[in-house]
Amino acid sequence: MSKEDKDKIADEKLLDIANKWYQQMQNASIPYISLPTRTKHNIEYDEDSEVWKYGDKETLRVANSSKGAVHLLKMAYVVGFLKQQLKENRSSTLREMYYISEGWKKAKFSAQDESNHLVEDLEIITELSRESFHLRPEDDGATIYGPLKIREKTRRGDRDMHCQQDVGEGGYPIPNNVDNLEFIGHDAKFVIAMETGGMYARLMENGFDEDYDAVLVHLKGQPARSTRRVLKRLNQELNLPVVVFTDGDPWSYRIFASVAYGSIKAAHMSDTLATPGAQFIGVQPSDISNYNLPSDKLTEGDIAALKAELSDPRFDTEYWRSEINLQLKMGLKSEQQAFAARGLDFVTKEYLPARLSEMGIL
Amino acid sequence: MSKEDKDKIADEKLLDIANKWYQQMQNASIPYISLPTRTKHNIEYDEDSEVWKYGDKETLRVANSSKGAVHLLKMAYVVGFLKQQLKENRSSTLREMYYISEGWKKAKFSAQDESNHLVEDLEIITELSRESFHLRPEDDGATIYGPLKIREKTRRGDRDMHCQQDVGEGGYPIPNNVDNLEFIGHDAKFVIAMETGGMYARLMENGFDEDYDAVLVHLKGQPARSTRRVLKRLNQELNLPVVVFTDGDPWSYRIFASVAYGSIKAAHMSDTLATPGAQFIGVQPSDISNYNLPSDKLTEGDIAALKAELSDPRFDTEYWRSEINLQLKMGLKSEQQAFAARGLDFVTKEYLPARLSEMGIL
Repeated sequence: MSKEDKDKIADEKLLDIANKWYQQMQNASIPYISLPTRTKHNIEYDEDSEVWKYGDKETLRVANSSKGAVHLLKMAYVVGFLKQQLKENRSSTLREMYYISEGWKKAKFSAQDESNHLVEDLEIITELSRESFHLRPEDDGATIYGPLKIREKTRRGDRDMHCQQDVGEGGYPIPNNVDNLEFIGHDAKFVIAMETGGMYARLMENGFDEDYDAVLVHLKGQPARSTRRVLKRLNQELNLPVVVFTDGDPWSYRIFASVAYGSIKAAHMSDTLATPGAQFIGVQPSDISNYNLPSDKLTEGDIAALKAELSDPRFDTEYWRSEINLQLKMGLKSEQQAFAARGLDFVTKEYLPARLSEMGIL
Repeated sequence: MSKEDKDKIADEKLLDIANKWYQQMQNASIPYISLPTRTKHNIEYDEDSEVWKYGDKETLRVANSSKGAVHLLKMAYVVGFLKQQLKENRSSTLREMYYISEGWKKAKFSAQDESNHLVEDLEIITELSRESFHLRPEDDGATIYGPLKIREKTRRGDRDMHCQQDVGEGGYPIPNNVDNLEFIGHDAKFVIAMETGGMYARLMENGFDEDYDAVLVHLKGQPARSTRRVLKRLNQELNLPVVVFTDGDPWSYRIFASVAYGSIKAAHMSDTLATPGAQFIGVQPSDISNYNLPSDKLTEGDIAALKAELSDPRFDTEYWRSEINLQLKMGLKSEQQAFAARGLDFVTKEYLPARLSEMGIL
């Protein structure tokens, strides 16, 4: 779909909101919006799509109180601002929009949290992402390196970049709005997403991308939306398996889970952000003993997080139960860079090929 | 200088360390190393070069105790590891080297801090950066966008990239070892380094780089070494003025100070990392009142930091004293994105051109 068509749909969705209010008033109803209740208690793991979604509980925001009326007023201002922004082909950060509300009198936001929350409400109502309205996050996405050719539609025209031949060692940085990307060619067999920059650089230096036709993606810790969206699209559009390589501790398993099953915070975006087919490659608790990796003792926080994962539906599989119980028993955790203790080539020549074969990817 | 020549120098410097120990032993002395004392009390502001440097106090590490001997043993292992790494044209992260020390028996590091500190010692002794020994930091540098053409010598060959025509909206990501870069052409008049990604994207969207022949650099908060090194080289090699645009609070003034005068932590690298000619463009405390910017109250921590800056030699100028005192009097701080309250174009059409004229850059 062209950028113009996408903008047109976003514009129509915004107009729909205003139209509904207009109809409500014409029918002599007090204007309102209806949204799924956005608390932990209304988030469910959807077995069919294998991702987190909102449940059936609904919250109404009605202009029958001063609080409700001001809320709808704020939304009306945001709708107006975004509509104008689409018309002028501009974009802005969430932070800029917050400051712009300074000029909205009674509709001024009292804190950034409030405007962020309202934008998430808009995403739910319109079933579009904030990027569709040209709202940018503060943070960039991650970087990509590998046998993949990307066309990015920028404000200065199209840019075609091969993510090995046309980029430096920093790789190709994922822009905020991933929907401006097209994958125009590739020689890849799979995608490997890594938690740390050290491991990303290690695979690049060791030529793992060339030897195994792998697209390397640096997650930069808990991945940004744009990074998760790129992984989803690589999986869906190019049919590439996605594997996730993190440290071996409960916080890193959550990184994997947010890639594979979505996050509670963005449960309304799970369909576009989550890659249910993504597989965890390691560091597995069993690797710590099998490879005799340098390790640290689990902290009390780690133990509590592991126990919480045992009752998390995303980790409710035989594999995860057995690995997590093993880790609790050992009381140890290891980082992905700990493989360096066995030499700088061990991870790319031994560990990853063995795991990829086990997983049926090589 | 070619990469091969640089590696040769690094190799010789490492051999020098071992040679000194050998000579000490031949002269029947107990082996030792001598280093400037690396505490706050031995850091001085060097008026001539306008950067932070170590003072005259020296610390000796002598192998006349088990502690001293183990320290030199660790350094010997590191020297050997780095020499091998240069020979094989490999590189590693600080974290990987820490794990590699697992195999060094008595020379094994007990914590990452210890190995990092030893690498800084090596930098001081050899007067080379850790990157010269192919040691990588965990974190990437920042990104660049603007009328600048860069040649990066990568492991896969040279890559020539124009930082407007050959990159996407994410810009060109600065690699870890900036000494592999060459600036092969530019149409720039100055460099503007920004604290936040939001402002970097704003200037890019508004075409500020084209309208004013500006190279945009995103600092990503407190800038990484590689980012500071790039700013220094843009200033020194291309004679481009560097201006720094941050939020208007004491923590952001420190970002400016680390670009301009160096940091206490890396005082031994000030000559290569600091850009003494860098100028602060804003947000100035006087801008908050002059432009009636949305602001927040100073916290107690902010006030203490501002007061500390009043006794910091880096801020000992009439300009900074007057601005900091004004800010303490107003009790307010503003973010750079607060200019959005006056419209998305205000910062690029009004504020920055006015400041750049005042500063004699436009």
